Order: sequence, then C-alpha cells, then structure tokens
Amino acid sequence: MTDKTSPTQPKRAKDINEWAIETDVAVIGFGGAGACAALEAADAGADVQIFELASASGGSTALSSAEIYMGGNGGTRVQKACGYDDSTENMINFLKTAFGSNADEDKITSYAENSLAHFNWLVGMGVPFKDSELKERAIMALTDDCLLFTGNEKAYPFTEAAYPVPRGHNLEVEGDNGGPLLMKILTEQVGKRDNIAVNYETRALTLVIDDSGSVVGLVVRMNQQEIAVKARKGVVLCAGGFCMNEDMVRKYAPLFDKGMEPIGNPGDTGTGILMGQGVGAGTVNMQECFTTVPFYPPSSLTYGIFINDKGQRFINEDCYHGRVGYNALVQQQQHSKRVFLITDVDGYGDYEKMSYLGAQVVGTGDSAEELEKELGLVEGTLCHTLDTYNTHAEKGEDPLFHKHEAWLRPLKAPYVALDCTLGHGAFYPFFTLGGLDSLPTGEVLTPERNVVPGLYAAGRTTAGIPRTAAGYASGMSVGDATFFGRMAGKSAAGRSN
Amino acid sequence: MTDKTSPTQPKRAKDINEWAIETDVAVIGFGGAGACAALEAADAGADVQIFELASASGGSTALSSAEIYMGGNGGTRVQKACGYDDSTENMINFLKTAFGSNADEDKITSYAENSLAHFNWLVGMGVPFKDSELKERAIMALTDDCLLFTGNEKAYPFTEAAYPVPRGHNLEVEGDNGGPLLMKILTEQVGKRDNIAVNYETRALTLVIDDSGSVVGLVVRMNQQEIAVKARKGVVLCAGGFCMNEDMVRKYAPLFDKGMEPIGNPGDTGTGILMGQGVGAGTVNMQECFTTVPFYPPSSLTYGIFINDKGQRFINEDCYHGRVGYNALVQQQQHSKRVFLITDVDGYGDYEKMSYLGAQVVGTGDSAEELEKELGLVEGTLCHTLDTYNTHAEKGEDPLFHKHEAWLRPLKAPYVALDCTLGHGAFYPFFTLGGLDSLPTGEVLTPERNVVPGLYAAGRTTAGIPRTAAGYASGMSVGDATFFGRMAGKSAAGRSN
Repeated sequence: MTDKTSPTQPKRAKDINEWAIETDVAVIGFGGAGACAALEAADAGADVQIFELASASGGSTALSSAEIYMGGNGGTRVQKACGYDDSTENMINFLKTAFGSNADEDKITSYAENSLAHFNWLVGMGVPFKDSELKERAIMALTDDCLLFTGNEKAYPFTEAAYPVPRGHNLEVEGDNGGPLLMKILTEQVGKRDNIAVNYETRALTLVIDDSGSVVGLVVRMNQQEIAVKARKGVVLCAGGFCMNEDMVRKYAPLFDKGMEPIGNPGDTGTGILMGQGVGAGTVNMQECFTTVPFYPPSSLTYGIFINDKGQRFINEDCYHGRVGYNALVQQQQHSKRVFLITDVDGYGDYEKMSYLGAQVVGTGDSAEELEKELGLVEGTLCHTLDTYNTHAEKGEDPLFHKHEAWLRPLKAPYVALDCTLGHGAFYPFFTLGGLDSLPTGEVLTPERNVVPGLYAAGRTTAGIPRTAAGYASGMSVGDATFFGRMAGKSAAGRSN
Repeated sequence: MTDKTSPTQPKRAKDINEWAIETDVAVIGFGGAGACAALEAADAGADVQIFELASASGGSTALSSAEIYMGGNGGTRVQKACGYDDSTENMINFLKTAFGSNADEDKITSYAENSLAHFNWLVGMGVPFKDSELKERAIMALTDDCLLFTGNEKAYPFTEAAYPVPRGHNLEVEGDNGGPLLMKILTEQVGKRDNIAVNYETRALTLVIDDSGSVVGLVVRMNQQEIAVKARKGVVLCAGGFCMNEDMVRKYAPLFDKGMEPIGNPGDTGTGILMGQGVGAGTVNMQECFTTVPFYPPSSLTYGIFINDKGQRFINEDCYHGRVGYNALVQQQQHSKRVFLITDVDGYGDYEKMSYLGAQVVGTGDSAEELEKELGLVEGTLCHTLDTYNTHAEKGEDPLFHKHEAWLRPLKAPYVALDCTLGHGAFYPFFTLGGLDSLPTGEVLTPERNVVPGLYAAGRTTAGIPRTAAGYASGMSVGDATFFGRMAGKSAAGRSN
C-alpha cells in the first residue's frame, strides 16, 4: 500500500494483498467506550483486537471525573440506600426535557431502561460505589461519596417535567480521581480476557470495505508500517470526539470557535467520525458542544446573579454550571459584549481559595449605583435588576427566572462583580457532542438511516445521550460512552454475516 | 435495474447496462441555480441536459421576490445612478460581519469580487433593472424600482464594520413578481440554446460513480422508467434545500423544528444533498436556517420595541426582519415563553391593512403599568424598559441596543402589544441554509475538503453565502444561487477528465 491513506478514503478489500491481523471484532480507541465494547464483545465469545493511538489506555474518560449518570428502574443500589426512588419514566422525562428537539428518543429510552443493569454490570466489573450521598452543590465529588446531583434536576424548568433525583454516581475514591480509577479497572478486566489483544501506539488510518459497501476491516499504522486488519464481524469506532481538531470545530460548531479551551485527549481529532463518513455514515448534532462557566465552588455564588452588558439577568443561577455557561455564551453571540456575575460579600465567600473559574473582580460598589457606574452599564439598569431581584428574593420568589427558593436571598451591598466574559480570563472549556448517527445497538447509520454493515460506534465518535450543554449533567458522557460502548461490542460480536 | 434506488446509494458504472442519454453536463434542478449552471456550461461549449422534477422551470427562485444582492467594485450601474459608491472591500467586510464564524470567506471573496460582473451578466441575459431607488424600509419592492436596503447594512453592529450601501436589486416589474420574471427570462435563454435539452417531470434518483469514485452520471425516473444518464464532464446538483423534509429538519436544524412554516417548492426535500453525501461529499452549516418575524410593513412599527416575557428588550428593532426573527426565536429557545412587539398608536399605524405578520393584539394600556399587567408581566419590568427606552430615545440615543437615531422617538401611551410568540399566530417562515460543502468553483468537497471528481453543486443544495438568519439580507440566496450556479456550470464544462 503506497498511495496516500486518508480517513475518508476507505480501502477496497480486493486491493488488500495481505491481512496482517485477523480478528472477529476490531475496536478503535481504548477509552471508556472502547474498553466496554471490547469487554462485551469478548464476553459474547468474539476475538477482539483493540487499536489505541496512545501508549496506554484511558482516552478522555481517564481525564474526566467519571461520575456516571444512572438511575430509573426504581433506583440503583446507591440511590435506594440514600432514600431516592427513581422511576424509568421520570428519568426519561428528565432526559427528553434536557435535550428537547436535539434528543435521540430511542437512545434515551434504551439508556434509561437499562441503566440499573448498567450500574450492576459496572459493579460486577469491580467498579466501587459507596452507599452515600454528597449533599452540597458541587462540580465534582472530592470525597469518596457516591451520589450527587450533577445536572439541572432541581432547577426550573426541569422540575416541571420530572421530580428531582440525583443520578451522578462518583466512584469510591478520594479526590478528583474517578476517571483514572474507572479506566484502571476496565483495563484490568480487558487484561484478564485471553480473547482480547491490545495494540498500543497504533493509529487507525482508514476502514476497508468490500464491493457491497460492508466494512470488513481497517488499515492501521503500527511500528512505522501500514498493515491491514481483517475484522470478520465488524469494526467499532470509539475514537473520541473532535474538540482537538480546530478545522472541524470551525466548520461544524462555529458557536464554539471562540478560542475556548478544548478538554479531551490529544487524539480527539475526529478521525473516527471521518472514517465513518468515508464509508457513507451520516453525522448529527455536529453544531453542539459541552461548555461551561464553572462558577461554583463556592456554592455560595449561586446566591448571586448573572447579568449581560444591558444589566439584564438571563438565567436562573441555580442551574447546572454547563447550562449557565451555554446561556452566557449565547448572550455573547447574540448581543452582549460582557457577562458579569454579581455577588455580595457573603456570596463571594471562599471564591479565591476554592474556585476553578478564573474570573477577575472587575468592580465593587457600596451601592448598586456605584457598581453600575464602575462596570460602565447604562444608568438604572443594574439598579433595576438588583432591586427587582431583591424585592422578590426577600419573599423567597423569583418570578422572572424561577431560581429555587433555597438559593434566594436579597443581595446586600457592598457588591462584587466577577468578569465572566469569554476571553477575559474566565474558563470556558468545551468538548464536542456531535458525531456519527447510530442506533442504540451501536450500528452506524447512513444519512438516510440505513445501517452501514459491519460498522459500529460509541462514545463521542457518535452523537449520544448528551446533546447540548444547556441540558447536560456531569456523568452523561461517560455514562453514554460506557453503556453504548457495551451495546456496540455486543452487537458486533453477535453479527452473522 | 430492479433493486431499490435510494439517493445515498450510488450506482456503479459497471452495473449500468445502457446509457439512455449521454451528455457533457447534467444539471439536476431548473430553478435559479440550475438555469445559470446550464447557461454557462452551454456557453462554454458543453452539451447540457437539465432534469427537473416539476412540469415547469422555476424552483424556489420563482417563488421568491428575487431581489439580487450585488455591489462592490465601485458599484453596479444602478448603485452608481442612485449615488452610491460601494467598494469590494466594504462589501466583503459587511458579509464577513454578517456571518461571523459561520462565514465561508473564500466564497464571500469570490462573490464580492465578481458581483459587478454578475450584474452585467444578468443584464446581458435581459434581466431588467431600473436606475432608481426605493427609499422606504420595506420587505420587498412592490414598485418597479430597483435598489433597496434589504438587510442589516444600516443597523448596529454592522455599521461598525462597513459603511451602509443598499445592495438589493429588484427587477423592473410591478408587484412582488421578481422571481417569476427572473425565471421566465432565464428559461427563455435556456430555450434559445440548441445545446441544452430540458427534461421535465423527471426525478433524479441517484448518482453513478466509477471505480475510482468519480461521478460519471446519474439515474433518473422518466415516464415511469428508471434510465441511466451519462455525464461526460460532470453532474451539477441544483436541487434546492431541505425545508420540506421534516425528518432532515428535525435531525439537522432542531432550532427550527418548531412547527414553523417552510418556504420553498415541494421539491426542497434535500435529495440533492443526500445524493452528494452518497458519493462521499460533506455537509456544512446544516443547523442554520433563514427565518423571520416580518413585522414591517408598516415601517412605523420599527419605532416600537420587542420584549421577552421578562419585559426585557433583546434587539435593536431597526435590524432586518430576519435578524429580529432569529433573535426572537433564540429568546424562546433559551428562556422566554413569549415575545411581544410594543408600539404606540402612531407606530401601529396601518398595521391591519399592510402587515404580513399575522400577530394579534394581546394587550393595550393607557399606561405602561396597565399594559404590563394585561400581559401578565412581572410588576415594574415593562415600566422600567419603556422608561429607560423613552428617556434615551428623547435624546436620539439607544445606549443598550444602538437602534439608529432615525428610528428613535419616545413611545407614548396608549400602548399596543402584538403577540409575536411562535405558535400564537405570528408568521415564522423558514428555509434551510446548510448543504453540501463546495468551493467557489462549484466543486463539491468531501468532509476532508478533497474534491469529489465530476460533482458540482449550487444554490440551497450547498451552504453558500448566506449562513444565518441573523446576518441575512433579502437577495442573498438568489444572488448566491445564480452566481455560484454559473460558476458550477462553467467549471463542469471546462473539466478535462
């Protein structure tokens, strides 16, 4: 093979002279999705080869906190131990509300109906979850406690559609170490299986198709050589998203092409998506990314208010940080050059010690008038906003944005303004939520939603459960990657061709 | 050929037994883009076959007002006659500002640099433009005057990037009849050319590729029979957008999947896009559509203010109606259940006689307090907004949204509120602005931006100049379709293969 190999240019089986490796199922990528795909395929009796670009397993899952979003079915063992009852219908209602027109209802149903079974499968693999709850409003658990609210479950308008239940399951480990522990456990499980071979430092280059368009293998670069791998049952693409590919972000997700910080591993360059496209697969949800403006901890900042450069509020501040960040980004896209978080001294609290936000104090004032002037806002605008907010907060009400009573109290001078404007220091990370269109089984689809024979995908190479930052909850991406990774592995192993 | 034919499943040339038609260039679709592609290909010496689904030419161009967006290069003949100087740089700056991160800078440059030449080409074809200007703020010209401002040229923030020049060129015809006249003229020109054959009532089913992946023809259904057409030079897809395909809108443009009114012809089902995807082409900008809330005429409503259900303004109301509509839609997507246009009696003016909007009066008030209560808004919110607006309007200023002085005057009680909420009667039409990725030459690209040999496209089958409703101006879509249709036809005819 001497001609230039490119992910969107599949090779033809008849042009392959030698299959250097033959297997039943080939898995591209050894993060959370790839590990789970390999395990299920192997446990269904298939021979599996994993091809991983890096010299170790992990992917973006290992870089995450790896809370896993699970519930429904009456509740997981941990939910029950902590006194929560979570019906499948309730979980489905929440997820549909979270993603609205962007939602994939088939995937949501499959995910929710099998969520308890997924919890039990993870426990069976040795993933430790403690029967305890972390009750504070946190971005992640730094203790070894398990259950926490990781999304918008307690916030308006989600409370109109589903009763609030925590579904974030943190692994039993101190510090922000859930991701590394999860991948360590899954990697050990892979190691225990004789029918899984792992090839590190091996780059998947392109797929191989036969004359009918079925995927029958792939070409990889290993030890400086391009070799062909025959996959008798199928290829599972678990190669991550595209947040590290600037051209793809600009092209497909222009709202996020603003110098924001990509979070993921260096391999998140969209190669899996491109390989799928090369054999006729369609993509969906490419315009959406996770983003956030991580303004808590300290949770006391939730008592504050976000405003735009018109002095207007635009969100109930008790929402999940990702939903706040998405709305802040849209404000800046539409008409506002600045975004501020206004707090009082009590709310500011331990900001300097505890925060991940990176926002600078850009104004203080002994009165609303003084702060308004210092921020260069139009006279009377912030004063009106604060006055309206305080009047109602006094009564435990927020008739404009419906922030929950628990986070309502009048803000008292002196005031502090944090500059949450993109590009002014505040941390706006992002990763992509679009990818190959696929069925809950992991089968990859053409733009007309016909199955591409022999091709499977999971994780951020696909568009999965999480579809927008506005509806995101921590644990949804790892939950989606591990669950649909399993489904893809099982489907591939079970394929009769 | 007996197997099921689907747009994303191309046929292989070796499986074609008989080419019923052979030509140099095959053009799919006889709207503005297809007509211009055929004319340029024919005038470059190629034999051309047009395949049109309907029983007549026209496409969506014939349904439009067909102002054509042109300028730069010192100005068109009409711009000059009306006293406007328009530099190419100014036009480029405006278009880049209009579409921001969504813009295709190569297409913008090509379009602007060749815009005067395009005007002259249209004139050469016999398209009549009168050397006159329509000075009022209008959605379309109902007189035979030519030049009008059709976008955001005079509105903030566009005025920060480019000096305002009108670029909408209306055909010299009374009433809203520009589209039919344009297509009548182009169709007559096609009829004058011996080397163009037109096949009506013929549906393009799928493309034909050779073993190297080059497009070498297509399969069409004509007289109840599937026949193969060989295109020696190439196929040009000018088959419209996908606003009539509910599944595609839901999948790719969920923001617009809200029961809005699709505007286009019944053939705008995305078939051209699907056929391109089937042979490996990539798509871009699929999430964006044109939309609007056509609140003028009467232009006097521009003196009014748009508010959300928090009583907040969100846009300078002197923007183009499409930009206002897009922002109103985003408000409703983000946090607002209602959108109102607040006017006084003078502003209301001839609304009932002149408007296309369809919005109902939902409140009137002898004071801001009374209207606020009638609309169910939180006490003090609309009062503050009106008070702030009026205080500054009195001085000819709008420090919050920068509405131009020309449209600023205090609003005086009694007030009237029009309900511009989606689903409450207000007209929110839409059509799609995403499609195949292509070069300014009309060559279609893979997701990695390699050319698909033998495949060309133009019009709403591609993502062209107009990329969002927020930056749109009337005449951009017909301008883009006719100009890049010409480029595609010329490129196909000149291809040596």
